[in-house]
Amino acid sequence: MYAVILAGGVGTRLWPRSRQDAPKQFSDITGSGRTMIQATAARLDGLVSSRDTYVVTGRRYAGLCAEQLDCIPRDNILTEPSGRNTAPAIALACARLKRRDPTEVVAILPADHHIQDGVAFRAALRQAKRSADRGYLTVLGIEPTKAHTGYGYIRRAAEPLPLHGDLATYPVLQFLEKPDQATAEQFLADGHYFWNGGIFVGRVDRLLSEYGERMPELYADIDRISAALDTPGLDGLLAEIWPKMPDISFDYALMEGAQRVAVVPMQAGWNDLGSWDALEVVAAPDEAGNFPIEGELLTVNSSGNIVAADKQIVALVDVNDLIVVDAGDALLIGRKESIQQVKQVVAKLQSGQRADLL
Amino acid sequence: MYAVILAGGVGTRLWPRSRQDAPKQFSDITGSGRTMIQATAARLDGLVSSRDTYVVTGRRYAGLCAEQLDCIPRDNILTEPSGRNTAPAIALACARLKRRDPTEVVAILPADHHIQDGVAFRAALRQAKRSADRGYLTVLGIEPTKAHTGYGYIRRAAEPLPLHGDLATYPVLQFLEKPDQATAEQFLADGHYFWNGGIFVGRVDRLLSEYGERMPELYADIDRISAALDTPGLDGLLAEIWPKMPDISFDYALMEGAQRVAVVPMQAGWNDLGSWDALEVVAAPDEAGNFPIEGELLTVNSSGNIVAADKQIVALVDVNDLIVVDAGDALLIGRKESIQQVKQVVAKLQSGQRADLL
Repeated sequence: MYAVILAGGVGTRLWPRSRQDAPKQFSDITGSGRTMIQATAARLDGLVSSRDTYVVTGRRYAGLCAEQLDCIPRDNILTEPSGRNTAPAIALACARLKRRDPTEVVAILPADHHIQDGVAFRAALRQAKRSADRGYLTVLGIEPTKAHTGYGYIRRAAEPLPLHGDLATYPVLQFLEKPDQATAEQFLADGHYFWNGGIFVGRVDRLLSEYGERMPELYADIDRISAALDTPGLDGLLAEIWPKMPDISFDYALMEGAQRVAVVPMQAGWNDLGSWDALEVVAAPDEAGNFPIEGELLTVNSSGNIVAADKQIVALVDVNDLIVVDAGDALLIGRKESIQQVKQVVAKLQSGQRADLL
Repeated sequence: MYAVILAGGVGTRLWPRSRQDAPKQFSDITGSGRTMIQATAARLDGLVSSRDTYVVTGRRYAGLCAEQLDCIPRDNILTEPSGRNTAPAIALACARLKRRDPTEVVAILPADHHIQDGVAFRAALRQAKRSADRGYLTVLGIEPTKAHTGYGYIRRAAEPLPLHGDLATYPVLQFLEKPDQATAEQFLADGHYFWNGGIFVGRVDRLLSEYGERMPELYADIDRISAALDTPGLDGLLAEIWPKMPDISFDYALMEGAQRVAVVPMQAGWNDLGSWDALEVVAAPDEAGNFPIEGELLTVNSSGNIVAADKQIVALVDVNDLIVVDAGDALLIGRKESIQQVKQVVAKLQSGQRADLL
């Protein structure tokens, strides 16, 4: 099995640890001792070898990828001239895999998601490979734990496919955009809906044929890129092609209209770490009910605080439900329930020409 | 006029900027660009020359004093073998001044108080010198701005003394310990009460005779120290005498029972910076109503916060009335109204053997 790690994103909601020069996938957001992309690669251990692991990222992050994933061959780091969406990024990976073994299965994985239970993840991925081997475009379906309105959903059929394996695999009936609250609650109660975590598994030739059918122009571009790989003409070709690439997601462009799409349920403590408050779910609380992600905490009458600070000690006195993130040059302190407003901080820094702090 | 700056204290309530190795008087707590002891010395400009300015401090702080007050002769830095109270500290200074001109006036000043209005302070000190020249033990009386229960009070007579000068000088009727709330409110309403800020002015020979009368043993020690000054025997003598010094304040031991004591009112924005919330009174708020003592602030829906952090930027999101103090190795975040509880943090560090952070 091949793996393609998508590492082109910029997670501004995790400012100040996620920065333009080093987005969240290159940071150790959870205090695990590994950056998120390192954890993503390590999670594949035993399933995908290093030489079969690819990364698609922005040109400015190629160095970070090579540094952080030093087991992966340098050639496996594929760089986009500029950030597009996932359909072009995955196409770039397909151009490369087309020249290896197109009958093989590839797993496509975001670099910046947190998965608590690696064993459960690998079991789901193994099952997805079985499904993909049988020709299904397969997606991992995150078992929803609440009526979240921030994710796309996947509706499965009632009956599973007749596949071997310990885990069920269901036909996908529908991909659904982010719902409103009432709809999300319906989905949760119904029990046939999953969150779409953007983890896709399919045979390379199956993906290529989907591109050929649904995005013929992009498919032609894949062919041209594939032919130019390892030649001096590649950069020029990408420079010509890339600006015209559609800003469209793989889900929307390929998955939503495809036939023979399957979903493998996964219950593995998945979290997209979309904002700082997610650490409350991902991290373990200390005795006082605080979350010391990094740095030692000393608290007086304080609980529910999430603290990531490169300090010998952070002392909290009579404060609750705060998020504290120290990034050396910048310090963020915010109320947990309002922390999405960090976007306003980023916007102010942008308008204030403080690119050095973005 | 001589000046004696008392710089032996350790202001634990201003942790983490006030540390055992560098108590608050050696820090720039208010973000003025000067440490507090430097501001105290600078405030005497035009009234007391550098060679007439003395410092009494702990032995471990002699180096800091010499570094921060580089205009003062090294010999003017008098060191105590261990921290006692103000009566022994001032006695040590008197031992030195006895050998200069005992008919001269000396002003005794804490090193760690903030005074906004230097002009008003110097006017009051000039008036106090007039009063002291006439033989009065004189104290500067801080005009109270609220019914504070954390300070000692001074009660003045209704009628001023017949002294020249722009400012009135009153006989002191009584020194009073920290009052309860109701009494403090009475004092404030009465109008004849001042806060005792610990700034004393008197002729050296007057101070000596007070010591002689009220603390004869200490007076004898002053004589022995005075004789041993500039001899190799001084250190041995101090090592013998100092451990037996009474832990007693100058106010209590000498001022309270003395005759011919006067007070000069001062309205100069005095603040003892006893804890971090005092910065709200001392500092100027920005447009959003926050107090950026150090480091640039960027706020979203936040006000009333006091922030001192050596950061390029501190971003606050939906938080109010917090105190944020970054000291490099330690970060304090506390609710303003509870910030006195920082004492509990210090106590926990002490009991946890974290002397490096104290």
